[in-house]
Amino acid sequence: MKRIYMDHAATTPTDPRVIKAMEPYYQEKFGNSASTHSFGEEARQAVEKARETIAKAINAKPEEIYFTSGGTESDNLAIKGTMHANKEKGKTLTTTNIEHHAVTHSARTLEKEGFQTEYMKANTQGFVTTQEAQKALSKKPVLASVMHVNNEIGTIQPIKEIGKICREQGTIFHTDAVQSMGKEKINVEKMNIDLMSASAHKFYGPKGIGFLYKKEGIKIQPIMDGGNHEKGLRPSTLNTPGIVGLGEATRIAQREMDEEREREKTLRDMLVKGATEIENSWINGGNPKTAGCAALGFDYVEGQSMLVLLSDKGIACSTGSACNSEGLEPSHVLIALGLPRVKCHGSLRFTLGKSNTKEQVKYVLEELPKTVQKLRDISPLGGKQ
Amino acid sequence: MKRIYMDHAATTPTDPRVIKAMEPYYQEKFGNSASTHSFGEEARQAVEKARETIAKAINAKPEEIYFTSGGTESDNLAIKGTMHANKEKGKTLTTTNIEHHAVTHSARTLEKEGFQTEYMKANTQGFVTTQEAQKALSKKPVLASVMHVNNEIGTIQPIKEIGKICREQGTIFHTDAVQSMGKEKINVEKMNIDLMSASAHKFYGPKGIGFLYKKEGIKIQPIMDGGNHEKGLRPSTLNTPGIVGLGEATRIAQREMDEEREREKTLRDMLVKGATEIENSWINGGNPKTAGCAALGFDYVEGQSMLVLLSDKGIACSTGSACNSEGLEPSHVLIALGLPRVKCHGSLRFTLGKSNTKEQVKYVLEELPKTVQKLRDISPLGGKQ
Repeated sequence: MKRIYMDHAATTPTDPRVIKAMEPYYQEKFGNSASTHSFGEEARQAVEKARETIAKAINAKPEEIYFTSGGTESDNLAIKGTMHANKEKGKTLTTTNIEHHAVTHSARTLEKEGFQTEYMKANTQGFVTTQEAQKALSKKPVLASVMHVNNEIGTIQPIKEIGKICREQGTIFHTDAVQSMGKEKINVEKMNIDLMSASAHKFYGPKGIGFLYKKEGIKIQPIMDGGNHEKGLRPSTLNTPGIVGLGEATRIAQREMDEEREREKTLRDMLVKGATEIENSWINGGNPKTAGCAALGFDYVEGQSMLVLLSDKGIACSTGSACNSEGLEPSHVLIALGLPRVKCHGSLRFTLGKSNTKEQVKYVLEELPKTVQKLRDISPLGGKQ
Repeated sequence: MKRIYMDHAATTPTDPRVIKAMEPYYQEKFGNSASTHSFGEEARQAVEKARETIAKAINAKPEEIYFTSGGTESDNLAIKGTMHANKEKGKTLTTTNIEHHAVTHSARTLEKEGFQTEYMKANTQGFVTTQEAQKALSKKPVLASVMHVNNEIGTIQPIKEIGKICREQGTIFHTDAVQSMGKEKINVEKMNIDLMSASAHKFYGPKGIGFLYKKEGIKIQPIMDGGNHEKGLRPSTLNTPGIVGLGEATRIAQREMDEEREREKTLRDMLVKGATEIENSWINGGNPKTAGCAALGFDYVEGQSMLVLLSDKGIACSTGSACNSEGLEPSHVLIALGLPRVKCHGSLRFTLGKSNTKEQVKYVLEELPKTVQKLRDISPLGGKQ
């Protein structure tokens, strides 16, 4: 049976070169990087090498990289850690209405503790404009958190410009780069980023490992307590194989990113062109957009049913983010764009990646119209052509 | 060069069978367990199978197992999560003065928020007696946290009995089982445990993964916010390979634990007998003690120097826990036992495991007396024989 994976924003397969790089650290060089002996030293060296690779990739210093268990933890650490450590500066933060729940739900928890959040609104194309940012930032919040690439619609936010306004206002600037690390060029210095979250499994690294970039001098508090690992900011025995895998995934991405981006963009454009030939279809979110993302919508169909039928044809895609897949509520991102609820339910996200080919896109373009039609034929909402 | 690893309490090599079990989940069955399609379903099945294996091993229900990034996170989640979720019951918790820093530093953070901690004291043998527990628990704290096996001296605490007193007093009972899971038999029901932390890499599983057992009905609050994973108690994409590895390590441990415990005990007794033939030496902590742990001390030597010289001979051991290895402060556990500071500095921990053999113990027993003597010869504290 055909198996076509077009859900790379949910997770990616681990690159064979990454798996190979990790291998020695399970059995041979398995030491605890906090141990004084030679087994510990081997692990320490591997960890520091990965830290350097990652730092270099985003134009940071190695000591500004802190390893975590992934994007969610990095977001929590950045948001809660900053607000808790900078209470003397104020109790307000600003973020957007299209962030990942790791950011918005962290903000919500802070609100229960007496902090205030202001939500910048994305426009109908899925962008937080610099005008919108300027308005929110003129109130000089302690922290602003704006994602780099949106996980549901792929829009690339004007991070550099928003970061510049943050610098002017004295606001600490965090960006959730979970969907952009390894795919888009990131330069924390040029982009005025103070804090940045990333996760390995979104760019062909292993699950369960990520990092937080924290610019030197930015004060944050840990969210976990324990040993002195990562200068006390993130206690717990370091996940050496995971860290090595994250380093290797970063190294590979730096080398292959540009070429892969072009390749994915070609496939994506082909997919979008073909899919939007279906009547009463649309694209969610405007440009600039990350290369692999095709966020589409079809009137008179229910996304969840589409998923099931496409999965039967061997095609894996998603309605929104995997993190929300258990809920039946429409995506807060699509709602934020001003899409009516019924259209949110008809939305479908294809996220292309390294495993996809032109032949696969062709196959999807054969099956997709049939599947849409099949559902429209039985839809109580009408839509029979 | 010889390389003898006797620091299994710091971390263990990953069992080849565990590595093999994890392999398919990097590339072939790499899906996000929260995804609706078949790739997600494969991951979900693997996660649930591991959950069942782990639950069965400790006599819990699968839905009582929550995956985390490891012991530190599980401890933080248990301690902070319980106190935050049960404020209406009170603001006091009790723990011991020999816990891992993941527990005591979590308590300290809670104290800054207005909670109160009482510390039960271990006796000179390294045990929290039921009398001591009774005294602390008669004040009906919300939570009691007592570790199962101590990481530095290996003493096995009377968990079942302390758990019984907790039940009588209506106190929620947490145990840090990071050093006992996979090594000692655990039955959460019989041992009256409400919450239990464990980490895979301490028993031949991979780093970066662990779990929290939470008895049905016990209320705790998450420490991280994000998606709905693990019923919202621990958001973040599930680390499928890690979870599969944790499951496999548990399965292997259940099968081989008894035999391995006897084997390690024999080696440990041999090591302790030989080492204590050195004049002015001693054993830290009394019995019952976990099989692999030889916590020793030598007058007139400095543990850190011993580590360096032994490491040169290819022998890896530790002065205390790896998590404290960066600090120069003497171990809080040894201080708790009433050991004078100078004796704390002369303490050395050998923790045996699956990789160790009789020949290795013999070699250590050849090198150890020479190393001690070498240091005593140059010691300003005297000790020249």
